[in-house]
Amino acid sequence: MSSGRHFLQIPGPTNVPDRVLRAISYPTIDHRGPEFARLGREAVDSLKTVVRTESDAVIYPSSGTGAWEAALVNTLSPGDQVLMFETGHFGTLWAGVARELGIEVSFVPGDWRSGVDPAVVEERLRADGDHRIKAVAVVHNETSTGVTSRVPEVRAAMDRAGHPALLLVDTISSLGSVDYRHDEWGVDVTVGCSQKGLMLPPGLSFNAISAKALRASRTAGLRRSYWNWEPMLEANTGGFFPYTPATNLLYGLREAVEMLHEEGLDSVFARHRRHAEAARTAAASWGLDVLCRVPEEHSPVLTAVMMPEGHDADELRAAILEHFDISLGAGLSKLSGRVFRIGHLGHFNDPALLGTLGGIEAGLRLAKVPYSPGVAAAAEYLADTAGMRR
Amino acid sequence: MSSGRHFLQIPGPTNVPDRVLRAISYPTIDHRGPEFARLGREAVDSLKTVVRTESDAVIYPSSGTGAWEAALVNTLSPGDQVLMFETGHFGTLWAGVARELGIEVSFVPGDWRSGVDPAVVEERLRADGDHRIKAVAVVHNETSTGVTSRVPEVRAAMDRAGHPALLLVDTISSLGSVDYRHDEWGVDVTVGCSQKGLMLPPGLSFNAISAKALRASRTAGLRRSYWNWEPMLEANTGGFFPYTPATNLLYGLREAVEMLHEEGLDSVFARHRRHAEAARTAAASWGLDVLCRVPEEHSPVLTAVMMPEGHDADELRAAILEHFDISLGAGLSKLSGRVFRIGHLGHFNDPALLGTLGGIEAGLRLAKVPYSPGVAAAAEYLADTAGMRR
Amino acid sequence: MSSGRHFLQIPGPTNVPDRVLRAISYPTIDHRGPEFARLGREAVDSLKTVVRTESDAVIYPSSGTGAWEAALVNTLSPGDQVLMFETGHFGTLWAGVARELGIEVSFVPGDWRSGVDPAVVEERLRADGDHRIKAVAVVHNETSTGVTSRVPEVRAAMDRAGHPALLLVDTISSLGSVDYRHDEWGVDVTVGCSQKGLMLPPGLSFNAISAKALRASRTAGLRRSYWNWEPMLEANTGGFFPYTPATNLLYGLREAVEMLHEEGLDSVFARHRRHAEAARTAAASWGLDVLCRVPEEHSPVLTAVMMPEGHDADELRAAILEHFDISLGAGLSKLSGRVFRIGHLGHFNDPALLGTLGGIEAGLRLAKVPYSPGVAAAAEYLADTAGMRR
Amino acid sequence: MSSGRHFLQIPGPTNVPDRVLRAISYPTIDHRGPEFARLGREAVDSLKTVVRTESDAVIYPSSGTGAWEAALVNTLSPGDQVLMFETGHFGTLWAGVARELGIEVSFVPGDWRSGVDPAVVEERLRADGDHRIKAVAVVHNETSTGVTSRVPEVRAAMDRAGHPALLLVDTISSLGSVDYRHDEWGVDVTVGCSQKGLMLPPGLSFNAISAKALRASRTAGLRRSYWNWEPMLEANTGGFFPYTPATNLLYGLREAVEMLHEEGLDSVFARHRRHAEAARTAAASWGLDVLCRVPEEHSPVLTAVMMPEGHDADELRAAILEHFDISLGAGLSKLSGRVFRIGHLGHFNDPALLGTLGGIEAGLRLAKVPYSPGVAAAAEYLADTAGMRR
Repeated sequence: MSSGRHFLQIPGPTNVPDRVLRAISYPTIDHRGPEFARLGREAVDSLKTVVRTESDAVIYPSSGTGAWEAALVNTLSPGDQVLMFETGHFGTLWAGVARELGIEVSFVPGDWRSGVDPAVVEERLRADGDHRIKAVAVVHNETSTGVTSRVPEVRAAMDRAGHPALLLVDTISSLGSVDYRHDEWGVDVTVGCSQKGLMLPPGLSFNAISAKALRASRTAGLRRSYWNWEPMLEANTGGFFPYTPATNLLYGLREAVEMLHEEGLDSVFARHRRHAEAARTAAASWGLDVLCRVPEEHSPVLTAVMMPEGHDADELRAAILEHFDISLGAGLSKLSGRVFRIGHLGHFNDPALLGTLGGIEAGLRLAKVPYSPGVAAAAEYLADTAGMRR
Repeated sequence: MSSGRHFLQIPGPTNVPDRVLRAISYPTIDHRGPEFARLGREAVDSLKTVVRTESDAVIYPSSGTGAWEAALVNTLSPGDQVLMFETGHFGTLWAGVARELGIEVSFVPGDWRSGVDPAVVEERLRADGDHRIKAVAVVHNETSTGVTSRVPEVRAAMDRAGHPALLLVDTISSLGSVDYRHDEWGVDVTVGCSQKGLMLPPGLSFNAISAKALRASRTAGLRRSYWNWEPMLEANTGGFFPYTPATNLLYGLREAVEMLHEEGLDSVFARHRRHAEAARTAAASWGLDVLCRVPEEHSPVLTAVMMPEGHDADELRAAILEHFDISLGAGLSKLSGRVFRIGHLGHFNDPALLGTLGGIEAGLRLAKVPYSPGVAAAAEYLADTAGMRR
Repeated sequence: MSSGRHFLQIPGPTNVPDRVLRAISYPTIDHRGPEFARLGREAVDSLKTVVRTESDAVIYPSSGTGAWEAALVNTLSPGDQVLMFETGHFGTLWAGVARELGIEVSFVPGDWRSGVDPAVVEERLRADGDHRIKAVAVVHNETSTGVTSRVPEVRAAMDRAGHPALLLVDTISSLGSVDYRHDEWGVDVTVGCSQKGLMLPPGLSFNAISAKALRASRTAGLRRSYWNWEPMLEANTGGFFPYTPATNLLYGLREAVEMLHEEGLDSVFARHRRHAEAARTAAASWGLDVLCRVPEEHSPVLTAVMMPEGHDADELRAAILEHFDISLGAGLSKLSGRVFRIGHLGHFNDPALLGTLGGIEAGLRLAKVPYSPGVAAAAEYLADTAGMRR
Repeated sequence: MSSGRHFLQIPGPTNVPDRVLRAISYPTIDHRGPEFARLGREAVDSLKTVVRTESDAVIYPSSGTGAWEAALVNTLSPGDQVLMFETGHFGTLWAGVARELGIEVSFVPGDWRSGVDPAVVEERLRADGDHRIKAVAVVHNETSTGVTSRVPEVRAAMDRAGHPALLLVDTISSLGSVDYRHDEWGVDVTVGCSQKGLMLPPGLSFNAISAKALRASRTAGLRRSYWNWEPMLEANTGGFFPYTPATNLLYGLREAVEMLHEEGLDSVFARHRRHAEAARTAAASWGLDVLCRVPEEHSPVLTAVMMPEGHDADELRAAILEHFDISLGAGLSKLSGRVFRIGHLGHFNDPALLGTLGGIEAGLRLAKVPYSPGVAAAAEYLADTAGMRR
């Protein structure tokens, strides 16, 4: 048994605030009663203020993976083509889900160090003269690499190509942490979940749905029952759900969104950017490279740090977990052992970041990875930007 | 604002014990770390002790409806036939799910006052000489009617007919409250969820899977990704999940199953039967009929009480909610307004039952429904059976 | 291990609302920081709205017994005389505290079935021509007997006698449950605590202090340090305390008082009176006498029920605890075994009362105590007065 | 509203572990029932394993100040002399309490940078030939200065002097963090409380009582009621209390002591010493002096750091609180503005210490206090001693 509070610095699930933990521990209520109707409405409405949509949104009792599936089965038919991108592990997994559901994936290869290239989107869509591509599916923030794709530029590329495909965006690890605008950016389906920037435990996932996506759903031919938007939207009008919702997590959602607005969404986003910059400052001082190679695509929510040759990231992570009680994210799939990922998102503050960076620095020493001091540089950066905290 | 603790006496979600509420409010942990591996294994193993299987079991972050879908998409192919039963609202809904997924439903009509007739099962299967029926799907406890079907007799009927169909059983509102034995009874897929006898908030659902069902899943042709057993079972071997699990509800599952075993499953089942008998004793004294018309099929977990002609159940329920702070279950679908349902399952005891029955009795008086006193008879019954409480 | 939520129906500690339990489980903060200053002020101000004073009030980390001691050591000098009353166990105990502190007690004997007699107060004070009596100390609600003394009439008697003694009132089991007015009734020191009508766990106690009492404290000669009002009041002006306060219980105090005001103090008091009447209705139907023999002194917060000859109250209580999971109050001191006390105060509602009365009725049957049904009569009473609930 | 978890790095109250917060939020139970009897016994027994006594111990619902008073009023008579020491703010305050209670204090002046000098103890006692000094009262760990007095050497000095005075020791900020042995060290009364090394919210205080102290209490002439050991010890034999105990904090005490033993007391003490050394390493690197001037008296639980001339500690603390969400301890009384105190006790770990030191370093920069980097040195120290963590 170790002492002290664990530092959960993976890029999600994130450290759940006490307010949210207390909220989810309130007694479960009748999901068909008047008190629930209020909760149901407030939960959906809350969510929409974060996704920034005045259109529809639905909440599933499921992991984020479920919302991936929901976005596809509600809008597509067997054999439809979807344009997807190898931005990293999760972009690749989503393509796998699409294939399992009987969708044809046009997959754009990538180097796992950069986001979706808007020029490639335009090119691919222009080449698709007969509009076989029914959707473009983009991961906003690649949790496996720390790269944030530029969604508005993807949208602009689609518009320039004059292509009618739907735009589906995975905001799993960006929602509530990175500026995102479903309506303004012309997204058709937003995919999100609870356990990252929304500061909740896992168990809820979301779709925000444009009018165009909703129209598409009326003729989409993929079989669906659990994920079907239609009965969900219908029941939601009264504040209810077509099946038993995850009531206690909805308590948490309402509370967490209230916290985001108390801080102010813009302040929340600025905080994440500032912490990301501090993390990169430490990495640079350590003499370690950051995986993301496109400056304007650095993720505000996590930083993937590359190990020097001959040093294994998982051994470092294990030492840091055992000796300094900090969980860091592993390199996934082809990055296994080559990077460690620092999550600096969600309910987080300066001393927690400094503790994380300090613990990593101690871990580098313990694991005999060559480094120069870095946490002091991060502390300086935080001091010099203290006025910008909110 | 009313004072006092709400009486949540619908047949699920049920009153969640404080121990479980505290458990689900612990900080979320890394779902890929060593501490989670222990939790993941313990959660699945715990579940299996309640389902009573030594075969496989999987846990989904979803409502029970999701586990309905999972049971179907993992075992069946487009156009397969499944034998289903109109035991009530939920038997009917499950058939709807099957149809939405492209399965052909052979639906046995029912009167909503009795369970699955084993003789009909045998007859239908004998008539299916070419084995087009691939599965028999039974709701163990019909939450809408308070009728418990006799699963072992259904199994015996299938065996007598010598038919190879799989047996799928919905234990949504029976698991953890009514004696149930996945292995011993020869069930192929058990469907369950968290928010009834397992005393958890909603958000988890389960499948227990026989070896025969697992074999069937290898050739089943329905498209699936989220619900796919295979990656789930594979990840579970290490205590992990193929996607982010609902960690905090898993804390609760582990705690709730520990509570069930502290009381002893047989004691738990006896407690439910005793409370059901006490509820029927009160109803009989009130002069009100119970919906279930087959004595050996009375549900231990809920009692659906029929209103006298000219009195609306929903008006009574609304008065009881407003004035006595008790939530009762509504009559669903064609029973709307004609019955109210008393949930007496989960974390429950004698004074809570007497408070519920006393509140209903006060409600009958307030709503001017003719009745004779009944709560006193229930108190007598509980006194006379006090030695049998555990 | 038993199932279900325990019914804590002793006359305090009472059933703590979930909101309060969640509030007290928030992380402790710096008791010298700005966030605490707000909490400290709000806690004291909250308390004053319930005691109904615009004068001073102090909060101790202690049991209610500590506030008894504080009321005495701050106002009296060695050898001073105080007029006290044998209203029951607690009136007697308070007199014992006074004697231990070196105060001379003029003790008015009583029958434990009635409150303080205002005529006796007047008579005793008139007889004290040289004003040796420095204080009159009254227990507002005798928790051991279920008798509520008429404080305004005691005050009037003091005024008629023209005697300068201070009026000290113990509101331990009345505060937040029974109408009480420190300023309007001319009380000099009010003694209260957290775990009864204020719906908190035990651990806080209170003094409200009139200007006259504060003046008396300046010359009072009893030694004091921990209980000394002066440094407490001085620190309180900034929202702080002279020593580390019980921060987490203060969170609960703020929350609990907010709940009382959401319901409305008058509604809270009416609720208690109605539940007390329902309890007496059941007792009358059972054929059992209530201890309090003065109709206008029936306690709204508890009912002490007398056992028939030849039956032991503690055996009944033990059976009810073991078999029906309800804690009832014992007969204290000379009432031991002769009465049981039903607490119907604090966070409480109709079905909880009916469950309690139903469980007692079942217990009477189990313990073979002769009785006629009574819970049905209570249910009728609650139905007939449902409109008066708030 | 700021984001992230506050760093409460004052030298108590400390960061309360989630397990303890959850424990104290369980429903309050009947303090006279069988479940409480178990709790009461376990709480007292738990406490004794930390105080390391097989003699008696009592638990008060009060702040630690109350236990100071209890130690005095139970053992002394009006006019008795007690030898006390100006080790800092709290040693001075305890002397004030003694004077308020009518005890004559023989006060040894001090420089607030060192502990009790055993040689002075011996000298004073030898000079007291007629044994007017009835007690020697020592603060084990001076929370205001970060100096730990050497209690075994004080005991040895008393023994050398052959003086019969009782030895009273305040372990308010050492208990559960610093090695302490009531029996082995021959202490007569130990004074402790809940909110420091015991990791609880404030609200409980303790006395451990030697047989000699208990004998002294039988003739001690100071007036006492609330603090009286005798009824407390008598009620404790059954697991009960003479007045309503702070039940929910007792839940927490039981849980917290279980946590201490899971980690192992020796590991706990080693952890505190290691963290203190790391804090002093950082201070030395910053170029700032530590207040304690006696090497073997450095406190394991807090470090008081001296500000350079011309810089105000409270301005620094305010900046660190505002910008980096860390609470540090102020300089008290004559140290006001001249030192800040870093608490590194209780439920604490390496990254939390590094976050604290990093935040202070950022604060030094922000407040323009001259410093060289220090957190990196602390990280190195922690890496180099990682194997010694437990």
